[in-house]
Amino acid sequence: MEIKTYLNEQKLAVDGALKKYMLEAEEENGLFSAHIEAMRYSLFAGGKRIRPILCLAAGAAVGQRPSPDADLLSIACALECIHTYSLIHDDLPSMDNDDLRRGKPTNHKLYGEAGAILAGDGLLTWAFDLLSNSEVSGLQPETRLVIINLIARAAGSLGMVGGQLLDISNENKEFPFETLCAIHRSKTGALITAAILAGGIAAGADQAQQDALRRYGEQVGLAFQIVDDLLNATSTTAQLGKAAGSDASRGKATYPAFFGIEATRQKAATAVEEAECALNIFDAKADPLRAIARYVLTRSH
Amino acid sequence: MEIKTYLNEQKLAVDGALKKYMLEAEEENGLFSAHIEAMRYSLFAGGKRIRPILCLAAGAAVGQRPSPDADLLSIACALECIHTYSLIHDDLPSMDNDDLRRGKPTNHKLYGEAGAILAGDGLLTWAFDLLSNSEVSGLQPETRLVIINLIARAAGSLGMVGGQLLDISNENKEFPFETLCAIHRSKTGALITAAILAGGIAAGADQAQQDALRRYGEQVGLAFQIVDDLLNATSTTAQLGKAAGSDASRGKATYPAFFGIEATRQKAATAVEEAECALNIFDAKADPLRAIARYVLTRSH
Repeated sequence: MEIKTYLNEQKLAVDGALKKYMLEAEEENGLFSAHIEAMRYSLFAGGKRIRPILCLAAGAAVGQRPSPDADLLSIACALECIHTYSLIHDDLPSMDNDDLRRGKPTNHKLYGEAGAILAGDGLLTWAFDLLSNSEVSGLQPETRLVIINLIARAAGSLGMVGGQLLDISNENKEFPFETLCAIHRSKTGALITAAILAGGIAAGADQAQQDALRRYGEQVGLAFQIVDDLLNATSTTAQLGKAAGSDASRGKATYPAFFGIEATRQKAATAVEEAECALNIFDAKADPLRAIARYVLTRSH
Repeated sequence: MEIKTYLNEQKLAVDGALKKYMLEAEEENGLFSAHIEAMRYSLFAGGKRIRPILCLAAGAAVGQRPSPDADLLSIACALECIHTYSLIHDDLPSMDNDDLRRGKPTNHKLYGEAGAILAGDGLLTWAFDLLSNSEVSGLQPETRLVIINLIARAAGSLGMVGGQLLDISNENKEFPFETLCAIHRSKTGALITAAILAGGIAAGADQAQQDALRRYGEQVGLAFQIVDDLLNATSTTAQLGKAAGSDASRGKATYPAFFGIEATRQKAATAVEEAECALNIFDAKADPLRAIARYVLTRSH
């Protein structure tokens, strides 16, 4: 399979679903159009849709549903809303203070700090609206509650939100490698793993399949973050679409800071191998997951 | 019934449940203790627990469950988390820039802006964790999904979050009374109504009961907000525990600004009468709801 074609097709499906849901929300009330516009801006600012695509690919690997189907897409869209909200809040002046994201002005540069905080709050809340909306998902209520809880847990205080505080409160500090692992695991890894597991559970994964998907998710999430560290250290701002070299200038600990560039590349490759290994119990329907793992290694932004 | 005793008993039940759930979250991981501490600070900074108590009282009015029971309490706690997150974000320098809340320093004064934004994000996400957690609620999955969706809708972009943007973006502007109504309805009214309806639905309310509870909620929410406007205009900072007179100094439109103090008092009284009227189909089990409506008129902070 051609991974770039696959990623592009899935991204189009996710974008289409997001637009459809967003339009429906927008039509409900013109009073809040400025707020919806701020949410829409970041949601359609060129994201790669990695988390939603991993969710869809995990559903396809379990294989009991055609991909992408409407139930999986609604979960995929909710995941992208949560990811987008986290980027908007991370970019704020009081956090990473970034002016550029995906080559465009960050949300607060256009809508002000208050507008950006509320756009993030709106996207986070909307994610749970989508996940609990019986008009957009025909999945069994029990299954949907499991998925909502999984995603809330991963996005919350012991996952992504806690990881972000851990990250910014350790800037310009010496800390052990274990702390870097904890930051990566909570800030990035938790939601990526939840995305994959949610797709699998929605498609009816049994316990062995769920365990395999969780191991795959942990390793792919790790590889993804290591490559992010590498790109930040070795790319230009034009290539990245966001400030390059910002980790070093902010005194953030990263894999390259601990191990150097070459050993870091090797660690990313090892994580991808372990991710592929975790998929051994799956047949060819997991090929998209396998291809995504290898793609993570080669991405340039 | 003695309303103050009732409110105090219910508040103790809510506080106890919040402490129990919070402790469980805290024990899971020491890494995030600074973050959990910031969440805990605002959650236990002396809130009156009006939304959770309304939720419990609505459940009791429908009367199919003893009050307060564990399932209703978990919803009540989630509502308080959402309310608390909204206060933390509203108080931020880029929003209302308030230093005092309930007589204590606001969250960002103690934990910094980034810490406060993340404490809010954590509380909002945790609310949905609680609502979807099968270990804390034995309600039917279908019912829980309806309640999650109802609360997400009320707290989100067409409700509380959208209302906050509408509020701050209309500061120092002339606008019609209809806009003030829209701000009150979305920013405050939506979550109060959702709290009442959620309690009723959890207790098995039929459609007529739900309609009555919604009407009650809309009127009580309105009365609550009108009295808030009145207190802001007529109290001292020491009485309120937050900056008095801040509405006028920020150029916020309020009921007293449109109608003067006396006519505003009358409008609050009318809303309370209509709230009581909406409860006509209920028997004495709705007395706490009736008493709360009357109490809203007389509260001093």
